[in-house]
Amino acid sequence: MNPEGLWFREIFTDNLIFGYRVREVLYSGYSKFQKIDILDLYAYGKTLFLDNKIQSAQLDEHIYHEALVQPAMFAHPAPESALIIGGGEGATLREVLKHNTIKRATMVDIDGELVKASRKYLPEWSDGAYEDSRTELIIDDARKYIFETDQKFDVVISDLTEPLEEGPSKYLFTLEFYKRIHEILTDEGVLVVQSGSAVQTYNDLAASIHKTLAQLFNFVRVYVVYIESFQMLWAFTVASKSQDPGNIREEILEERLKYRGVENLKFYLPRYHRGLFHLPRYLDEKIPEGRILTDENPYIWTA
Amino acid sequence: MNPEGLWFREIFTDNLIFGYRVREVLYSGYSKFQKIDILDLYAYGKTLFLDNKIQSAQLDEHIYHEALVQPAMFAHPAPESALIIGGGEGATLREVLKHNTIKRATMVDIDGELVKASRKYLPEWSDGAYEDSRTELIIDDARKYIFETDQKFDVVISDLTEPLEEGPSKYLFTLEFYKRIHEILTDEGVLVVQSGSAVQTYNDLAASIHKTLAQLFNFVRVYVVYIESFQMLWAFTVASKSQDPGNIREEILEERLKYRGVENLKFYLPRYHRGLFHLPRYLDEKIPEGRILTDENPYIWTA
Amino acid sequence: MNPEGLWFREIFTDNLIFGYRVREVLYSGYSKFQKIDILDLYAYGKTLFLDNKIQSAQLDEHIYHEALVQPAMFAHPAPESALIIGGGEGATLREVLKHNTIKRATMVDIDGELVKASRKYLPEWSDGAYEDSRTELIIDDARKYIFETDQKFDVVISDLTEPLEEGPSKYLFTLEFYKRIHEILTDEGVLVVQSGSAVQTYNDLAASIHKTLAQLFNFVRVYVVYIESFQMLWAFTVASKSQDPGNIREEILEERLKYRGVENLKFYLPRYHRGLFHLPRYLDEKIPEGRILTDENPYIWTA
Amino acid sequence: MNPEGLWFREIFTDNLIFGYRVREVLYSGYSKFQKIDILDLYAYGKTLFLDNKIQSAQLDEHIYHEALVQPAMFAHPAPESALIIGGGEGATLREVLKHNTIKRATMVDIDGELVKASRKYLPEWSDGAYEDSRTELIIDDARKYIFETDQKFDVVISDLTEPLEEGPSKYLFTLEFYKRIHEILTDEGVLVVQSGSAVQTYNDLAASIHKTLAQLFNFVRVYVVYIESFQMLWAFTVASKSQDPGNIREEILEERLKYRGVENLKFYLPRYHRGLFHLPRYLDEKIPEGRILTDENPYIWTA
Repeated sequence: MNPEGLWFREIFTDNLIFGYRVREVLYSGYSKFQKIDILDLYAYGKTLFLDNKIQSAQLDEHIYHEALVQPAMFAHPAPESALIIGGGEGATLREVLKHNTIKRATMVDIDGELVKASRKYLPEWSDGAYEDSRTELIIDDARKYIFETDQKFDVVISDLTEPLEEGPSKYLFTLEFYKRIHEILTDEGVLVVQSGSAVQTYNDLAASIHKTLAQLFNFVRVYVVYIESFQMLWAFTVASKSQDPGNIREEILEERLKYRGVENLKFYLPRYHRGLFHLPRYLDEKIPEGRILTDENPYIWTA
Repeated sequence: MNPEGLWFREIFTDNLIFGYRVREVLYSGYSKFQKIDILDLYAYGKTLFLDNKIQSAQLDEHIYHEALVQPAMFAHPAPESALIIGGGEGATLREVLKHNTIKRATMVDIDGELVKASRKYLPEWSDGAYEDSRTELIIDDARKYIFETDQKFDVVISDLTEPLEEGPSKYLFTLEFYKRIHEILTDEGVLVVQSGSAVQTYNDLAASIHKTLAQLFNFVRVYVVYIESFQMLWAFTVASKSQDPGNIREEILEERLKYRGVENLKFYLPRYHRGLFHLPRYLDEKIPEGRILTDENPYIWTA
Repeated sequence: MNPEGLWFREIFTDNLIFGYRVREVLYSGYSKFQKIDILDLYAYGKTLFLDNKIQSAQLDEHIYHEALVQPAMFAHPAPESALIIGGGEGATLREVLKHNTIKRATMVDIDGELVKASRKYLPEWSDGAYEDSRTELIIDDARKYIFETDQKFDVVISDLTEPLEEGPSKYLFTLEFYKRIHEILTDEGVLVVQSGSAVQTYNDLAASIHKTLAQLFNFVRVYVVYIESFQMLWAFTVASKSQDPGNIREEILEERLKYRGVENLKFYLPRYHRGLFHLPRYLDEKIPEGRILTDENPYIWTA
Repeated sequence: MNPEGLWFREIFTDNLIFGYRVREVLYSGYSKFQKIDILDLYAYGKTLFLDNKIQSAQLDEHIYHEALVQPAMFAHPAPESALIIGGGEGATLREVLKHNTIKRATMVDIDGELVKASRKYLPEWSDGAYEDSRTELIIDDARKYIFETDQKFDVVISDLTEPLEEGPSKYLFTLEFYKRIHEILTDEGVLVVQSGSAVQTYNDLAASIHKTLAQLFNFVRVYVVYIESFQMLWAFTVASKSQDPGNIREEILEERLKYRGVENLKFYLPRYHRGLFHLPRYLDEKIPEGRILTDENPYIWTA
């Protein structure tokens, strides 16, 4: 064991630090919105950090992105249009396009430099998605976009960084924002929100997203997935206007998969769908204790 | 953020380092078998490290120990005797004794100094278990014990450190060892083995324990739990002579709980039992690929 | 190389971190004025940290303390009284008392808890100095003491922590303070001030102390010593009313040593006296550029 | 203070670690002989590491290289030819060429890839020296070169990495090697050898080089310089056939400087020459205790 040389240090909290050994620095710079580091780590392969926080890694980005996208896509009976909020690496878009029912996939990310760097240094993430004729890429503030658009969507996927005090995502986790999303969703529309960590000590973002969405949607469910490169259990919240996304028969999901020609799934399969919704007790008991997030009193993430 | 001062550094692999901020060093010394550090960490409270590897923490030792013990105890219809192999902190014993059907609980740990230090500095772990008249504590090599004993047990719990090349656990994960355990188990006997990490990159110990036990037991199942202080999804393998431990009706488990007067459960409840057995796809597909561990060719853990 | 386990991390600047492997934590606590850590380090033996900054170490505290005290003591023709400002570890006092001409040694330190912890855990530092009948220990603000005292001193030794914004030393490096010291010094009085690092990038405290003292004293000289446990070249400023402390003939120093019965010197000897005053070019050229420190515009140390 | 992001970790010893914050990785690769990292550090600017050990930094490479070269060059009455052993960064060569009496400067370094990377990424180090018509660059084993050459030199400069067990410098610090250097030196020839750290705990390389050279040369002297980017006092050993290099009158040095048109000195000046030779007591007393290094029993550097 000889941990000399180049390392990337992530201060998860004041009390816990992660150190990653670095094989190569592929890109390191500041966009208008954040610090972007794309590194080749010995532990995880190519890895994206934003403001020194790990975002996704070659080792398991397929787990994160399939876990984010596929349960919601499969929970919709026949998605033709999808809106991605954030998702700068392009892998969320890639997952959406695996469904050949999709005719239109719109992605709105505020940080054009992040999108550009990801396309260049992490091409496996988008894997050609930007060249797909169904794709529409918009570099803009997602809040502005959803309040101005006159389009409707079958599925909306919120793939945002944590709502930091000074960050661009602060007002993208509020009741007002979700209300507008509810309006632009079609009748059987599904919304999924990456909801932060699902560990015992940090899970109130998930609980609060659940509570907030429960004001608007008939069916709201939290599910969890372990992401090795995050070292953490991770939460996602999925909301539907028409049916419980956590309670769909496996055969129906299998049919949807075949009908839509979905291929290349490495993590998600219909037979694992229901298992995702089993929560550990601490989280199960914490979910009802979330608070409603509003523009006036948004969630501010602090480590 | 000011990460100055006293930290404990765990080198999980050559490529990944964890740093824990230390509030106080409660105990630090070498026993005949290992380096023992008992620290008060800002992130997790009181925490035990053996040979610089985290073992259990105040934050979530209840999760680890209930997850290890309760599924097996509840999978047995009426456990009266239990054998704990390892489990030096005393919390595994504590969990066993929660079942008032238990008349005899035998714990065999090789490291008397670890048991002593844990009783002194981590009293919440054993929580009076050593004073319980049903307890028999034996400081000895567990291999020697199980081959010499003429007693039988309803439940056997293997709570050992990873099988390191030079460590004392190397021959406590082999077919020969498990064969003898099978012999000393009663007809409806259940064995559970803490099986190491269940993450994508490190899970072959779990797969191999599964394969090895499948040579001996009719029913063998792996289940997983996220342990925050380990930063990892963790695997346990449970084997039964008489029924599938992962497929017991919730009502039966509830009855057992009431009948046995089990109280003070903070993580496990009958209604969470079945959910534990949902494995992520990578692990589900990896389990069949384990190899049979033998005395001649044991598992050696290397980071 | 296996740098696991307990380490103490000192953030020297945002850009440079030192990590010290810890054998044992002897004491760790907060006094009214600062965080005090007394550790046994593998690299340096017993070591004192104040507010996470290294102060003195078993390895070379004799170098630091002899370097601070002896040039000034030897530069005075016949010191009978000495005042120590700060010096909580007690080793500065120990050095003063080596001269048997000394009849009265007064030490004023603001932090009684530091003095107490040092006596208990670092007894080699004071080495019986507090039991010496010539010693007078005063726990008080040094500024208050020197403005109120009606005593005079032959030698004054300033052994203070860096003047941090919020720290207790801020107004103990100013013209007003030194003016009062000048008043309470006898006619051939000598003052020496520990003056911080003497490296290329951090040396302006030394330059400014020199400039400030030059307003008051006829002879002011900076000298430097390498302190291994600090990883740095360190500066001291010595000022005299009557002669150049850097230009005393070796024979005279030898005579003083014999006459005063000075023994147990491990670093300083008369034949090394003059060599200390050779400054590296960058420092030699920087000294004239210091500014006069005043109560209105004191020096604030920032890393 | 927020020490997140990219850092380079140097394990100085098992007990002491340095961490440097990295602005940019300019080059990172393996040559046939060693790992080469050229980084832009926040603390020191552009910096070269070989096998994870710091070699020279923009902040103070002028101090290291002037300290290595100029005392020897000035100690020779009229150097016309110089041989540099090692010195891959090119700055040692640059310093030699500042003397316009030099007609021939030969540099022999084993690592052509290091020379190439240094020219590309650290051009300020060589500063055009390789384009100078007086320069002869030879990529070869220095031991082979000096035993085969039929040329003579006025000054020889040994600028090698520490003699590691497996490294290429092991037999370049021995009596046999220095004997051959003595042979190819002209009558008034001067040899200088970078001699490793001069701190209390690591200084026996310097002592042994001194002892070994004292078998061959009439005049051998050790001198020391503080190198901030090394965090250490550093030793150099200079040997002369004809006069004491530490005892030359300043006026003579001044004349040499003028006569040879030496310009652009940032650290060395004749008036600082003598001061370099003042050693701290621990080193002064340690020098006589070195041992004679031989091919059979060479010095092996271990941290």
